[in-house]
Amino acid sequence: MIPPDDRGFTLGDGLFETVLAQDGALVRLEAHLDRLASGCATLGLPAPDPAEARRRMRQALAEAKLQGARAAVRLTLTAGSGGRGLDRPDGLRPRMIATAAAAPVAATPARLITAEVRRNDQSPATRLKTLSYLDNVLARAEARRSGADEAVMVNTRGELACAAAANLFWISEGRLFTPALECGALAGVTRARVLACAGELGVAVGETRAGPQALATAEAVFLTNALIGLRPVAALDGRSLSPHALVADLARALDAQ
Amino acid sequence: MIPPDDRGFTLGDGLFETVLAQDGALVRLEAHLDRLASGCATLGLPAPDPAEARRRMRQALAEAKLQGARAAVRLTLTAGSGGRGLDRPDGLRPRMIATAAAAPVAATPARLITAEVRRNDQSPATRLKTLSYLDNVLARAEARRSGADEAVMVNTRGELACAAAANLFWISEGRLFTPALECGALAGVTRARVLACAGELGVAVGETRAGPQALATAEAVFLTNALIGLRPVAALDGRSLSPHALVADLARALDAQ
Repeated sequence: MIPPDDRGFTLGDGLFETVLAQDGALVRLEAHLDRLASGCATLGLPAPDPAEARRRMRQALAEAKLQGARAAVRLTLTAGSGGRGLDRPDGLRPRMIATAAAAPVAATPARLITAEVRRNDQSPATRLKTLSYLDNVLARAEARRSGADEAVMVNTRGELACAAAANLFWISEGRLFTPALECGALAGVTRARVLACAGELGVAVGETRAGPQALATAEAVFLTNALIGLRPVAALDGRSLSPHALVADLARALDAQ
Repeated sequence: MIPPDDRGFTLGDGLFETVLAQDGALVRLEAHLDRLASGCATLGLPAPDPAEARRRMRQALAEAKLQGARAAVRLTLTAGSGGRGLDRPDGLRPRMIATAAAAPVAATPARLITAEVRRNDQSPATRLKTLSYLDNVLARAEARRSGADEAVMVNTRGELACAAAANLFWISEGRLFTPALECGALAGVTRARVLACAGELGVAVGETRAGPQALATAEAVFLTNALIGLRPVAALDGRSLSPHALVADLARALDAQ
């Protein structure tokens, strides 16, 4: 249980990571903990002890009896209790919480809409998985209201940034594109893996600043995150997208890593 | 205590109000609860029962033994437990929490800096007191690092929006200005009172879109919120500001309301 003066609860002052667990193993935990430590540096929080983080995540998996299943283990790190209003306390003591839940595979391709809510590319928080995720919640709710699964978020300059809970990729004239991190995208662990796979397959890659018209004319679109891996997109703002050979190749290369 | 699956904790999915309590009375509670209900409508959350909200706030005040003091009572409303990732659960059950703390008067004028972190004017959340307040925390931290008390926040278009935990006013050529709500400002209860006082005093008022240069050339600057009331500003980005007769008049009119 969390005390009501925890700054994660009162102000969204903290970070999280969602790690895939398969058969009891925390997949690519080190990459997630590295990203968490980097986010802590950005927010001015002390990074958690990796051994302690791992211990708590394993314990959460065991308590949920999910060691033999495909599971999502979430590690939450907050700025802890106290302080006065927005000001953090002098002797800041972060709070670390791990929880686990079953994580079924996304069996169907995603249907996307472009959300009205925009992403704040002019805050360092925009490139982090923070506890201040309300804009993402609102974007996802827009998608659900229109019968879609997930929302594309553009930033305040009108550039593509990411999906509400995934990184965004598209294929155009045989090349692979994804929004540059400066557009307000999370430095996704799976995003980096896909970029590496594309390099190995000899596919030209662009980390780019582009508007929604790049998606509207793309041959294929897909999403990535640590839980879903690579998920093809079957519809975008009502436009149907067919399965694409390069997306299938990238999915296979990712699985084989 | 808050369960770790509360969406306020995991995603900043919720709202809060901070109400001044004086000698056991919750000052302008109705205006705060009206604003909370309006924010709930924006976020798609059911509004809390006002009688229950009042009961919990009084109880928090009593439990903290602050009925005879000047206190801040915070009411937090979250989207409750559950859901899957960003998606809210079908049978959404909001959680309501009240806490109370002593609220000393700000005895000195404020020193401000203009923060680098910008405010996302392209999300409906920007005009609400949400649990996703990390940008405000980061702006305040910038202020503290440079020896100031509070941060001015501009929005992503470069327009003045508010301070990290207060509304912003300035005086120029005898007129009173404050950022328009569309710039990303909270519809502050005290902001509205100051605008009414100015009207009664026959002072011309502009709710405006203006850049930081408007502050840089202002004759006077002040902050408002429900806890501090009206707080004059003595320095902005290193420029000293003298006490101003109109600010003093407005403070008196506000006290007399």
